[in-house]
Amino acid sequence: MMTDLYQLTMMYGYFKCGMRDNLATFDMFYRSKDATTHYAIMAGVEQLMEYIENLHFDEDDIAYLRGLGIFDEDFLDELRRFSFHGDIQAVPEGTIVFSHEPLIRVTAPIFEAQLIETALLTIINHQTLIATKASRVVQAAEGGTVMEFGLRRAQGPDAGIYGARAAIIGGCVGTSNVLTSQMYGIPAMGTHAHSWVMSFPTELEAFRKYAELFPTSCLLLVDTYDTLRSGVPNAITVFNELRERGYEPKGIRLDSGDLAYLSREARKMLDAAGFPNAIVCASGDLDENLIRDLKLQGACIDTWGVGTKLITSEDSPSLGGVYKLSAEYVNGQVVPKIKISENPAKITNPGVKKLYRIYDKSNGMAVADLIALDHEVYNESQPLTIYDPVNTWKSMTLTNYTMKELQVPLFKNGKRVYDSPSLMDIRQHCEEDLATFWDQYKRLLNPHRYKVDLSDSLWMLKNSMIQQLRRG
Amino acid sequence: MMTDLYQLTMMYGYFKCGMRDNLATFDMFYRSKDATTHYAIMAGVEQLMEYIENLHFDEDDIAYLRGLGIFDEDFLDELRRFSFHGDIQAVPEGTIVFSHEPLIRVTAPIFEAQLIETALLTIINHQTLIATKASRVVQAAEGGTVMEFGLRRAQGPDAGIYGARAAIIGGCVGTSNVLTSQMYGIPAMGTHAHSWVMSFPTELEAFRKYAELFPTSCLLLVDTYDTLRSGVPNAITVFNELRERGYEPKGIRLDSGDLAYLSREARKMLDAAGFPNAIVCASGDLDENLIRDLKLQGACIDTWGVGTKLITSEDSPSLGGVYKLSAEYVNGQVVPKIKISENPAKITNPGVKKLYRIYDKSNGMAVADLIALDHEVYNESQPLTIYDPVNTWKSMTLTNYTMKELQVPLFKNGKRVYDSPSLMDIRQHCEEDLATFWDQYKRLLNPHRYKVDLSDSLWMLKNSMIQQLRRG
Repeated sequence: MMTDLYQLTMMYGYFKCGMRDNLATFDMFYRSKDATTHYAIMAGVEQLMEYIENLHFDEDDIAYLRGLGIFDEDFLDELRRFSFHGDIQAVPEGTIVFSHEPLIRVTAPIFEAQLIETALLTIINHQTLIATKASRVVQAAEGGTVMEFGLRRAQGPDAGIYGARAAIIGGCVGTSNVLTSQMYGIPAMGTHAHSWVMSFPTELEAFRKYAELFPTSCLLLVDTYDTLRSGVPNAITVFNELRERGYEPKGIRLDSGDLAYLSREARKMLDAAGFPNAIVCASGDLDENLIRDLKLQGACIDTWGVGTKLITSEDSPSLGGVYKLSAEYVNGQVVPKIKISENPAKITNPGVKKLYRIYDKSNGMAVADLIALDHEVYNESQPLTIYDPVNTWKSMTLTNYTMKELQVPLFKNGKRVYDSPSLMDIRQHCEEDLATFWDQYKRLLNPHRYKVDLSDSLWMLKNSMIQQLRRG
Repeated sequence: MMTDLYQLTMMYGYFKCGMRDNLATFDMFYRSKDATTHYAIMAGVEQLMEYIENLHFDEDDIAYLRGLGIFDEDFLDELRRFSFHGDIQAVPEGTIVFSHEPLIRVTAPIFEAQLIETALLTIINHQTLIATKASRVVQAAEGGTVMEFGLRRAQGPDAGIYGARAAIIGGCVGTSNVLTSQMYGIPAMGTHAHSWVMSFPTELEAFRKYAELFPTSCLLLVDTYDTLRSGVPNAITVFNELRERGYEPKGIRLDSGDLAYLSREARKMLDAAGFPNAIVCASGDLDENLIRDLKLQGACIDTWGVGTKLITSEDSPSLGGVYKLSAEYVNGQVVPKIKISENPAKITNPGVKKLYRIYDKSNGMAVADLIALDHEVYNESQPLTIYDPVNTWKSMTLTNYTMKELQVPLFKNGKRVYDSPSLMDIRQHCEEDLATFWDQYKRLLNPHRYKVDLSDSLWMLKNSMIQQLRRG
């Protein structure tokens, strides 16, 4: 039932018009609005598969739909029997993807393909967005570790739970979110809040108690009263006591004030006191821009706890993911479909398509992506000429290259044929995939545009369909 | 388990220090970052109550926590027995609230009060944010109806489901989201997508079929090919056929292009064809600013379908809600607690507090809010002097006024004592509550600041505690 009403009215329409079983292909892709999603990290495929597998209407749902007074009993019976019978292919989670690339391809009776549009978009749009944002934040930290801390500011429970999952894919090392940690076997992280310090007569007493209870993971929040005059000196006192008991402290956390200045001073104090291995962790309204600036100003921060602005992707809180009809089938023949618009970026790519990534064989780096029609065959031993998709007079002929098809089958005839890797394996895949892209494509501001080419056949098909529709 | 790890480490600390049952009071309030949340619409209380009632740890949870290797068995046993025993008061859903006002007050053993912080914030921050955004969008529509259309761009399923719920509280008349409609008995709305039109040989045929199937709710999407040359003329053809069969059409929907121009032209065409009652519905990247501008430019739009920018509160995608310790109890005596900060806006209000709204008796309009200490008593027959909270030399003495306490009890000793009104009743309450505020407080840009005063006793308590901590 997690769908839009118009999916059900259209399903009713297809059912009543005898079109229930007409096969159709839909593509899911996103349109980038800003630099934040110049590249994106695919995420949410596991939850999409769970959704497809559990898809059904129970009697309560049928009763509710009957109550709307717009559907007949034949249709409600059809829903009662509903399950998904189609094929789904998708780019695996953790893969780098770009605007307008087909990320998911659904071929199914239109009755079924239509129903899943809304949930598919909700799941993939959300997780891909947050994995992407996390990837940017991790990049800004330049090897420093990033923890996800955003549950309390997430847009509801799922946004917190699956947002944390996506943040791990994008490169975070752990999350404060206990439920996500439990569900996906990833590290849970955290120390204590200001309220811990405030509920003891003195800060020193609060720190002492904490160190007693957590001798092996003693990370103290030092900004409740006065970071440099009270918090850090009290932490050092307790760290010395801890060391006498045979334990090494973990470090301190800063959550307010000028993090550049405070972290430098705290670092000096910790070093001078004989704790060069105690880390400085920082949190508080961080994002990739602030992290980059703090590092440029010499902040001595080892670990970043990033909350609100990561879990909501604050500067770009939605991914423009859409799901568009690209083909129908008449007597077994593909009939490509296109949606045109006054806005060229909104014109869809027609036909049943594949997505390839082309690598330079000499260094393993990604050169360009290629969207081709399903039946096209490529031979890596032959030279390949690719065109700039907008300025087609810019072309490049490749000789020493490899090609990789990016989509993998998830469902065949409604049966699941893909097992999701573990979350930490997906994270690893993402890290390795990112390493195949030159820095200029990953720049946080004004990144260089990565080439996403259309094959000659697709380009010609698209243009002829546009011409035909404009004439008609 | 929907909590941050540090809540559990602190609970462990309180448990091991013999502080498990120490009573504490926490306040939930928000800090406004921008005009978008100058005022807010309280929402999420029903889901908070469900969370509190269902709070427990099952054996899987215990096993996971044991695996972290930081907790002992006594503590895990304590969690096994966990339920909430405290008192909770909150401002009812649909009520207008302001920055720094105590919206929720939790008094409970600190062990229990600490655990619920994260989920309480997640739920209230999210729904209050979206209800507030919806209120702004509805305000901009100036009596036009607003439908919530955002599920596919929501930050995950819950964000779509509960976001739609919150949007109804804020004034939307319905949602495209079938599940939210089913769960809360609110109107589901929607018509068809471009794919419906594209899956028929012609637009006219697609429209005809739709009108046949939905004669009483025939709203046609007219922008698949060419709005004014194809979509609207085809819709009018079908509307005429519909009328011959004895039905009146609902109207048309525009989803792209210049909505100001297209809606004016479409309106003229519909009027000229004899369909002055057919509505024009618009969708596509709308928010309160664009709606206001389109109306200023004479757009003829009756109904607004608002998606992405409402369901994510795009320009301000998080509410700065926090949950702060305000009092402890020693031998039955209240010990007020304060968190100070270099940033005056981050200094908390200490003590156990009540929130009042003061109305002008002559016109029923809200004059100011007052945060007072729990034990303070007010007599409406006596003059009341209130002070500007920042510029305390600005004061005002009221004589003809009424006062209303805004928080109501939700839980007493862990027992729920409050029934949530129906969602449509909450929506009604919100509409009535908004009507008691002068326009200047609701202005979309640069609203006039509504007065939120501290009582004399609270103001003196706060200042003396700040002085004392600064000296210490």
